[in-house]
Amino acid sequence: MAMAYSNKPTATTQPMTSSQPPPLILTQDELKKIAAYKAVEFVSSNMILGLGTGSTAKHAIDRIGQLLKQGKLTNIIGIPTSTQTHEQALSLGIPLSDLDTHPVLDLAIDGADEVDPDMNLVKGRGGSLLREKMIEGCCKKFVVIVDESKLVDYVGGSGLAMPVEIVPFCWQFTAKKLQSLFDESGCVAKLRVKGEKPYVTDNGNYIIDLYFKKDIGDLKDAGDKILRLAGVVEHGMFIDMATTLIVAGEMGVTVRNK
Amino acid sequence: MAMAYSNKPTATTQPMTSSQPPPLILTQDELKKIAAYKAVEFVSSNMILGLGTGSTAKHAIDRIGQLLKQGKLTNIIGIPTSTQTHEQALSLGIPLSDLDTHPVLDLAIDGADEVDPDMNLVKGRGGSLLREKMIEGCCKKFVVIVDESKLVDYVGGSGLAMPVEIVPFCWQFTAKKLQSLFDESGCVAKLRVKGEKPYVTDNGNYIIDLYFKKDIGDLKDAGDKILRLAGVVEHGMFIDMATTLIVAGEMGVTVRNK
Repeated sequence: MAMAYSNKPTATTQPMTSSQPPPLILTQDELKKIAAYKAVEFVSSNMILGLGTGSTAKHAIDRIGQLLKQGKLTNIIGIPTSTQTHEQALSLGIPLSDLDTHPVLDLAIDGADEVDPDMNLVKGRGGSLLREKMIEGCCKKFVVIVDESKLVDYVGGSGLAMPVEIVPFCWQFTAKKLQSLFDESGCVAKLRVKGEKPYVTDNGNYIIDLYFKKDIGDLKDAGDKILRLAGVVEHGMFIDMATTLIVAGEMGVTVRNK
Repeated sequence: MAMAYSNKPTATTQPMTSSQPPPLILTQDELKKIAAYKAVEFVSSNMILGLGTGSTAKHAIDRIGQLLKQGKLTNIIGIPTSTQTHEQALSLGIPLSDLDTHPVLDLAIDGADEVDPDMNLVKGRGGSLLREKMIEGCCKKFVVIVDESKLVDYVGGSGLAMPVEIVPFCWQFTAKKLQSLFDESGCVAKLRVKGEKPYVTDNGNYIIDLYFKKDIGDLKDAGDKILRLAGVVEHGMFIDMATTLIVAGEMGVTVRNK
């Protein structure tokens, strides 16, 4: 179900005549913002909300802060999925809590790095996959917001990474084991680095980025194989978790429910 | 196949006559030592060895150190499963390495907290389950050494804990999820503590001890369910990993191969 976003003209739907303004080409960040604002329409007062991490989720959290300030939303409790989001939400005056206190959430809004045709996601290029999965796994609704560049035919189809969080102990060993699990898909495993050093997650772990040349097939099966490796903490595939997908593209905004 | 251990008389096999010494009742620690020494008979020179953790494994490592000192073993490389074992092995002069350098091991020797009739183990009451599982999962042979008190009819059958290593983030939430996975087995989940504070593993994580009132059924299935919970790092069931089991009891030593 494609829905045109009312406030934004798009390049491809505007006829080119001299009496009209020149076509507006939206940047990727503007598309992310459109998707994010659309997602916040799902938020109502008195909700416990999972707050995602990353550049798209950031727009949604900004918008929630704005609506709280304007009194259009009240009594919201946010559960942040990273220390970064925690700080952003605090600065906006969004009341915060955690999963220990609120183990069931009404709604979560977050971006994704890839979305496959079945609305399975790859997340974690921003590094927060574990907390995101814990929080978004116990939401009644999980709204995923992306620009259209994130749509893929299969997990890994963008040529970018599927991240796996692992314990630092003997990480090279674990990286090799991960790579060999997906030999047939031409998998390459790389340690994520920050400058000269390994990137460290909020949980003190490392990230191994897996790159696939081909489709890895059944995702649940692949997920179980990954999790059975001792040393693995979590993988970045969010299988059967999204309930609503909002895609912003040059043609407008698409909302899809599962 | 029960094999009497040659150096130790046992209480139950000695007839009670006045001309013989009084029956010798072996302590649990003596039984552990008997099993450990028997396991070291499987060690030969030039091996890469996984070195376990805990009171039973400690005896095996002491014995390996002794045989190296005596020149009866040469060119051994040990891969320790904990910082504690690392220190013990260092103090005995056993050359050490790690999984990154030696991803395939010839043999590992370790104790277990429980052994079921299929030689599946519960490990980790000592807190090192993750490193033990990483190392013992890539050994050609894995010799498990226990005193007979560790034999159980089913995992959890001793009434003692099956430990699960989890990330500290929202541990109460994860503990509740773990407990509810095994509601039908009367599961109770408890955070492991050390004094007033949570016990912290070598990897900076917490341990949730699961106590079961009834058999949890298919262990592989149970293991997958546990691993699929975001927040879980590893569980203490070592399924289909042991290749040899050495049990020391009052009746002697039993060696069982798989």
